[in-house]
Amino acid sequence: MKTAYHKLTKTFKRLHSFSHLGAIVGWDEAVNMPEKSGEARAEALSELSFFKSETMKDPALLELLNQAEEQNDLSEWQKDNLSNMRRRWENSNLLPTDLVREMSKKNMLCNQAWRRYRSENNWKDFAPLLEEVVNLSKREAEIRSSASGKSKYNSLLDLYEPGLTTDAVDKLFSPLEKELPTILAQVLEKQKASPFISPNGPFSINSQRELGLEIMQSLGFDFSRGRVDVSHHPFCGGVPEDVRITTRYNEANFTESLMGIVHETGHASYEQNLPKEWLDQPVGTAQGMAVHEGQSLFFEMQMGRGPEFINFALPLMKKHFSAAANDPAWTHENMARLYQEVKPGLIRVDADEVTYPFHVMLRYDIEKDLIENKLQVKDLPEVWNEKMQQYLDLSTEGNYADGVMQDVHWPSGSLGYFPTYTLGAMVAAQLFTKLESEHGGVREQISKGDFSLVSSWLNEKVWCHGSRFNVNQLLTNATGEELDSKYFLAHLKKRYL
Amino acid sequence: MKTAYHKLTKTFKRLHSFSHLGAIVGWDEAVNMPEKSGEARAEALSELSFFKSETMKDPALLELLNQAEEQNDLSEWQKDNLSNMRRRWENSNLLPTDLVREMSKKNMLCNQAWRRYRSENNWKDFAPLLEEVVNLSKREAEIRSSASGKSKYNSLLDLYEPGLTTDAVDKLFSPLEKELPTILAQVLEKQKASPFISPNGPFSINSQRELGLEIMQSLGFDFSRGRVDVSHHPFCGGVPEDVRITTRYNEANFTESLMGIVHETGHASYEQNLPKEWLDQPVGTAQGMAVHEGQSLFFEMQMGRGPEFINFALPLMKKHFSAAANDPAWTHENMARLYQEVKPGLIRVDADEVTYPFHVMLRYDIEKDLIENKLQVKDLPEVWNEKMQQYLDLSTEGNYADGVMQDVHWPSGSLGYFPTYTLGAMVAAQLFTKLESEHGGVREQISKGDFSLVSSWLNEKVWCHGSRFNVNQLLTNATGEELDSKYFLAHLKKRYL
Repeated sequence: MKTAYHKLTKTFKRLHSFSHLGAIVGWDEAVNMPEKSGEARAEALSELSFFKSETMKDPALLELLNQAEEQNDLSEWQKDNLSNMRRRWENSNLLPTDLVREMSKKNMLCNQAWRRYRSENNWKDFAPLLEEVVNLSKREAEIRSSASGKSKYNSLLDLYEPGLTTDAVDKLFSPLEKELPTILAQVLEKQKASPFISPNGPFSINSQRELGLEIMQSLGFDFSRGRVDVSHHPFCGGVPEDVRITTRYNEANFTESLMGIVHETGHASYEQNLPKEWLDQPVGTAQGMAVHEGQSLFFEMQMGRGPEFINFALPLMKKHFSAAANDPAWTHENMARLYQEVKPGLIRVDADEVTYPFHVMLRYDIEKDLIENKLQVKDLPEVWNEKMQQYLDLSTEGNYADGVMQDVHWPSGSLGYFPTYTLGAMVAAQLFTKLESEHGGVREQISKGDFSLVSSWLNEKVWCHGSRFNVNQLLTNATGEELDSKYFLAHLKKRYL
Repeated sequence: MKTAYHKLTKTFKRLHSFSHLGAIVGWDEAVNMPEKSGEARAEALSELSFFKSETMKDPALLELLNQAEEQNDLSEWQKDNLSNMRRRWENSNLLPTDLVREMSKKNMLCNQAWRRYRSENNWKDFAPLLEEVVNLSKREAEIRSSASGKSKYNSLLDLYEPGLTTDAVDKLFSPLEKELPTILAQVLEKQKASPFISPNGPFSINSQRELGLEIMQSLGFDFSRGRVDVSHHPFCGGVPEDVRITTRYNEANFTESLMGIVHETGHASYEQNLPKEWLDQPVGTAQGMAVHEGQSLFFEMQMGRGPEFINFALPLMKKHFSAAANDPAWTHENMARLYQEVKPGLIRVDADEVTYPFHVMLRYDIEKDLIENKLQVKDLPEVWNEKMQQYLDLSTEGNYADGVMQDVHWPSGSLGYFPTYTLGAMVAAQLFTKLESEHGGVREQISKGDFSLVSSWLNEKVWCHGSRFNVNQLLTNATGEELDSKYFLAHLKKRYL
């Protein structure tokens, strides 16, 4: 006879298949979809989310969960799988199915409108759509909050990184708020004395693409189970069995697409190395977004922009861009300056690792206030502008496209997501510090383009565990400590001062 | 209160959304999917077909159908929608859900294996997989046959063109079997006297692509609701709101990809012009495959390879391929010879319109015997070879890739599909003959690259009706007669003799 647990695995396997469809169709929406096909697509995807929601609300599923939790014949993995099932059940069952369907559709339509309006710097027509999406998120937060007793914003944070709270975020962000302004001022002063030379473009998209493919290959991306394409906003999508990363190319500047690719390859490595035998179960999926971002920033920031990676990548760059042997722009020293340039700017995704946390803190402050009803959507441009002046001394007045309209998250209904970026930077720094303390030769291996130690270490410490452990458990197992911002701050000082 | 009919429309709207997901994911599978992602993909798509099958088997749905059929407040469109719903219900409810799921998965895996094995000419390893798929089709045919009283093969034919029977096919094919061998011999003799000059390649894929895009635009393809990509086997997929056609390029020969694109644009025009207000309902989908192929062959054969189309397309070809002004290969006369070359060959999709019916009759004979248990999969290569010798005097001995393994249909479990190709050629000829009899200036308009008359006429006669009428009703409304092969034969004689 099949146990309750076994029956549950069948339902979740089925949900995994439907997630597969949603993930590929979602990727297609960002990469391929023609402009006027959005409405039918939004309808189809909202029907899918409605179906998933309905499946999770089947009373028989709750019955099985209760029964399975009484079973005493489960392995550790099975137990962890079961608690992941319970967590998903709770997340799904709190929201009325109609709200789920409405959110899915409105978020997608707003996301589609965002692409157009952002390119037109059209805040006026975009704001009402964003307001609808924010209102839906507020309704979600209220429902979750009143069920869990968490604050409204905490109940959204928890969706992206299980267990995360504003208390924890505040505690991790506070040293940054204190120290970063000084670090930034010092770095800017120091870099003034040694400006880099911009290599002469244009850099053809094809050469950039070829370079990116070669780097991905070296980093261990498995092209037999994934691919790289172009989208407005780079992301890592698809499913572990078919990982789809995207980038965008700028012929005037190859650094963007290259580091974008290194970043997304970090995400992809996590996905491609999740435990094979658990891929169709909740425990086999990646842990929350802070851990995920920890992998991408490990690749991009800890490795990718470090001098050892440049040792490895510089000859490839020179080959693909046919650089003259004696061109002073293509020296290791200049390339390191280029890739480690710190420069306050308006765009989060283009930000260096020193200024990036300011972009995150700004968004964290704002979305917290939005959800807690302390701020209205109509006031966003003004608040955004104020905070950009305060944090980075830059104005976004009248420039909505590079201000409040620059990110895909809010138009997609992802509020509570942003803090995980900076938490990810901390995860990455803490993991790299530990790796280096255990394996002194790691930097030398990176210099040679040998990423096998990095991959096997991250695989052992992070990737192979799926979502068995939350971020603090994972870090404690891997590094002996819970997440702490001190490693990230130490990294910044070491690299930039 | 909602009527039963209204409730049904909601269920079928939902199924339409799931078909959307399946169509885009299916397109992705053929166009983008990495080699080792096939298994997870097959699993996901089989789960989808299982879900659709389950939805159709809900006893409440039958109850609603019965109730709605008693309603006397339905419009003509609604009544036709309802009979389409009933037809789908019958098609779905005959098969056990497990068989549906198994077929979906096995067909996709066999399809994936086919790509690899065909490229290796590996019949030995492919045959057992094909046998499994054929056995599943046989089980399907048996179940359908015993429920409907139709013969086993007729019950499959009916899936692709509602109401089609071997009697009807035999009656339509019989004049071809009689007359085509003589026509072919005469055409070959005639063409011997006036061979064409092959234009000098290579023709860059990029130029071919640009040419194709320009032609698609002229033909009225709406790029805001569709796109063109590359796949192993050209097809028209996606959904009416987002039509995805594919082609394949050969640098040595541009005629293949160009006419492939014209052909698929015919399919796409049908899909893109289905009645907007009914797209999410069964009656809003295209009629069977014979009508569909009628549109693509109208575009490719009736128009695309005719002298008027060449008038329009030749300057574009010369522009995209930078042809020398005095190159004798790029004259209208030579181009017409090239595009109207008749040459017995092994490959169906590359066949001209005179030899194409032989390819179809061969497959029709074979699949009928397979389903009716008169032929075994292991004997296919031998029978194929015999029939190719008989029909086109060509041998496929040892050449499985260009023989029995050349088509995607059987490995995908599509048995009963092939006859619709030649029926489509007849549909196209009958429609074009009627169009010309009503509008004498149509050829002149095509010469000028003005396809508006063609589009509006086909839209009025075919496209806008969705699946309200079967092929004979549709043709009777459009041309005053049921489908008849005489127009096709007359067209061949007129063009080639």
